[in-house]
Amino acid sequence: MAERLVVIGGDAGGMSAATNARRLDSDLEIVAFEKGNRTSFAACGIPYLVAGEIEQIDSLVARTPREFRDANRIDVRIEHEVTDVDLERRQVEVHDIPHGRSFRIGFDRLVIGTGARPIRPDLPGIDGEQIHGVQNLDDGARLLAYAEHSRCQKVVVVGGGYIGLEMAEAFVMWGADVTLVDGGPQVMRTLDPDMAAIVATALERHSIEVRTDVTVTGFEPGAVHTADGRIPADLVVLGIGVTPNSELAATAGLELGVAGSIRVDRRQRTSDAGVWAAGDCAESFHLVSRRPVHVALGTIANRQGRVAGINIGGGYATFPGVLGSAVTKVCSTEVGRTGLTEFEAERDGFRAVAATIESTTKAGYFPGTQPITVKLVAEAGSGRLLGGQIVGGEGSAKRIDTVAMAITAGLTVDELINVDLAYAPPFSPVWDPVATAARVVAAAVAAG
Amino acid sequence: MAERLVVIGGDAGGMSAATNARRLDSDLEIVAFEKGNRTSFAACGIPYLVAGEIEQIDSLVARTPREFRDANRIDVRIEHEVTDVDLERRQVEVHDIPHGRSFRIGFDRLVIGTGARPIRPDLPGIDGEQIHGVQNLDDGARLLAYAEHSRCQKVVVVGGGYIGLEMAEAFVMWGADVTLVDGGPQVMRTLDPDMAAIVATALERHSIEVRTDVTVTGFEPGAVHTADGRIPADLVVLGIGVTPNSELAATAGLELGVAGSIRVDRRQRTSDAGVWAAGDCAESFHLVSRRPVHVALGTIANRQGRVAGINIGGGYATFPGVLGSAVTKVCSTEVGRTGLTEFEAERDGFRAVAATIESTTKAGYFPGTQPITVKLVAEAGSGRLLGGQIVGGEGSAKRIDTVAMAITAGLTVDELINVDLAYAPPFSPVWDPVATAARVVAAAVAAG
Repeated sequence: MAERLVVIGGDAGGMSAATNARRLDSDLEIVAFEKGNRTSFAACGIPYLVAGEIEQIDSLVARTPREFRDANRIDVRIEHEVTDVDLERRQVEVHDIPHGRSFRIGFDRLVIGTGARPIRPDLPGIDGEQIHGVQNLDDGARLLAYAEHSRCQKVVVVGGGYIGLEMAEAFVMWGADVTLVDGGPQVMRTLDPDMAAIVATALERHSIEVRTDVTVTGFEPGAVHTADGRIPADLVVLGIGVTPNSELAATAGLELGVAGSIRVDRRQRTSDAGVWAAGDCAESFHLVSRRPVHVALGTIANRQGRVAGINIGGGYATFPGVLGSAVTKVCSTEVGRTGLTEFEAERDGFRAVAATIESTTKAGYFPGTQPITVKLVAEAGSGRLLGGQIVGGEGSAKRIDTVAMAITAGLTVDELINVDLAYAPPFSPVWDPVATAARVVAAAVAAG
Repeated sequence: MAERLVVIGGDAGGMSAATNARRLDSDLEIVAFEKGNRTSFAACGIPYLVAGEIEQIDSLVARTPREFRDANRIDVRIEHEVTDVDLERRQVEVHDIPHGRSFRIGFDRLVIGTGARPIRPDLPGIDGEQIHGVQNLDDGARLLAYAEHSRCQKVVVVGGGYIGLEMAEAFVMWGADVTLVDGGPQVMRTLDPDMAAIVATALERHSIEVRTDVTVTGFEPGAVHTADGRIPADLVVLGIGVTPNSELAATAGLELGVAGSIRVDRRQRTSDAGVWAAGDCAESFHLVSRRPVHVALGTIANRQGRVAGINIGGGYATFPGVLGSAVTKVCSTEVGRTGLTEFEAERDGFRAVAATIESTTKAGYFPGTQPITVKLVAEAGSGRLLGGQIVGGEGSAKRIDTVAMAITAGLTVDELINVDLAYAPPFSPVWDPVATAARVVAAAVAAG
């Protein structure tokens, strides 16, 4: 009889695992349970839906349950929540939400792709209907319906990370007055303060009021309360990070790792043989700090899911780890980062040397050329590249990929200088900004 | 007494060497001779000058003789042509063009940065005033003056390489009817035929008539003669490649390398101790084929010049080699390439496995997303990445840098799959097109 793979969660981690397992094992019976009502959705698209750049929420669905059934022979059941995992009996308990009933189903192999959820701080008024997280399309639909219904004019975004920035931009485009509140001393804690300051200036230029070092103390309809006074708010977006949905795994007895994420090895195996985890619920390994980390990003979820699926299907694959690479944009300002910041490098015990350069995205004389600032961080002595940050105009952010590639390969900044990066006036100065930054850091490393 | 560095050629190779030598050796006397009347110019900008995207030819001058004198204490003499190098006496003979006189000057160290010139085939009518090469700003100024004076309506571009494509685009924007003639079976010989075909289609979509397998047999005012008949032409642009200006070096007795370029080692030293060469006149080393090559590109000239200058100034630097990375665009179609094509890999003795994928430049649902085609070439068995080619809409070409970085680092396509490339909907699909291509090639490598 065919073995059965049960998949918990219908988004990137779980469904990438399911489709990759199917490719290698055509006999496997695959059943996937998703508690929401959509599969394989691009939650990263929500800000652009609010901004009006994308019109239909369903255009964010990469693949529907029917498509999974027809193309991959995967039996996807939406609005089915897995409520218990019994590792001893190799069964899961499933709640069929629309029919209000539960059942148990056995598995031979199991993938947990339960994702993460926005952190909701335990503050007075946190359950108000005006307060929204942005983690899945159902959140997005609710937020959009609320915004339209309430014709919101004043929006407060709590938290200055990627989601916070993108939602702030979205509501500016929507036409609201937007205040971004962060409890820390800077926006974008994944950047060093000097680079974050450029982003903050850009936010203000785009009419977003930035209030750092402001602690939120509570909410009421129409306002956010802070240690620094009351801020009017028809609608509040929470962007203070996510926490992995690992309760099911923990209750089942699976080992947890950093920040409550599910511990996995390089093949995405959990502490129970035959159970894999992938995506926002699972732990990752940082390739530079060599420490376990929790990074909730769609790219990682897809890669981890693919690796889990290949291993489930009888192949062999490993996920070596992450660099925390990310790009975002706020109106015309683009941001990219990868590896360790100068702050993180020192925190993690490296002797770091950093340099920041200013250049242009195209040849300096070329029409439409934009300023770009590149910061690179290297290890003192060896000159090994540890991280990079980029802030600039159009054409800036994705240059971070060359830095990510160089870090992955263990290149030194000296080696980076001479890499044959491509040049033509509409694309770059003759010295690509990344190579220019490498020259300056290399000189700093050489100077000791 | 201070030693004297003589620099032959006032563009990227020579002047990068001069400024880098100055940085390390403040006592050095530096004299640079340039036979034209501009230094440190961005010849790559000429097409955009013709297209009207750049208005002033002088905006293509990165640094004037006066700036070199004031900022770097380099004595630059324009309109001075070095006519002989006497290695025995350590002297060069210089012709002062405006004054019509010659003199000799001694050197302790010498850099040759004489560049390259467009190949002018020995055909009837080749010396017609309507026939233009595009190698330096004087060429550009002449071409522009001729085009304006003759109000040219019909332009024939001979040669479908980078310069040919860019000049074809430029004259379309200028408002002329443009025919691109190539003696070979495809445009862009640095791409495989399948990728070149996409470029040819784009050229035709942009109203450029493409005629491949057509041999030019001669020129007359108003027409180009070909084996396939006469093509009307008010103006002809030659884009059939360049040949290094190495006659001076050869006559002096310096060893030449591939395609007549000046042989250099990894420190840019010629066969004579104390004489360096850098830029379009010098040989390079191909990092994948491990063979000497001649690549005439501004990026290489700058890098080689920097390495020569550091060594001249008493430091230590090496130029490891090139990948033939290049980007260009024809109207809205972008092209990037690096490393070996499938054809080149097989020619050079590799067992190659290639795959081509189609994707989008942004998330598929994001407004303004453009098609992108990525071809990757890997070594059979090992899976080592050998080369990449990209053709697509805006945002495509510079992604080739991640491929260049991966090849330089010796990554396999399997390793490339999991590199933490950055993602957000305005920048990329969740699987970056380069990573998607890596997945498909890796599967082909695994399948043997």
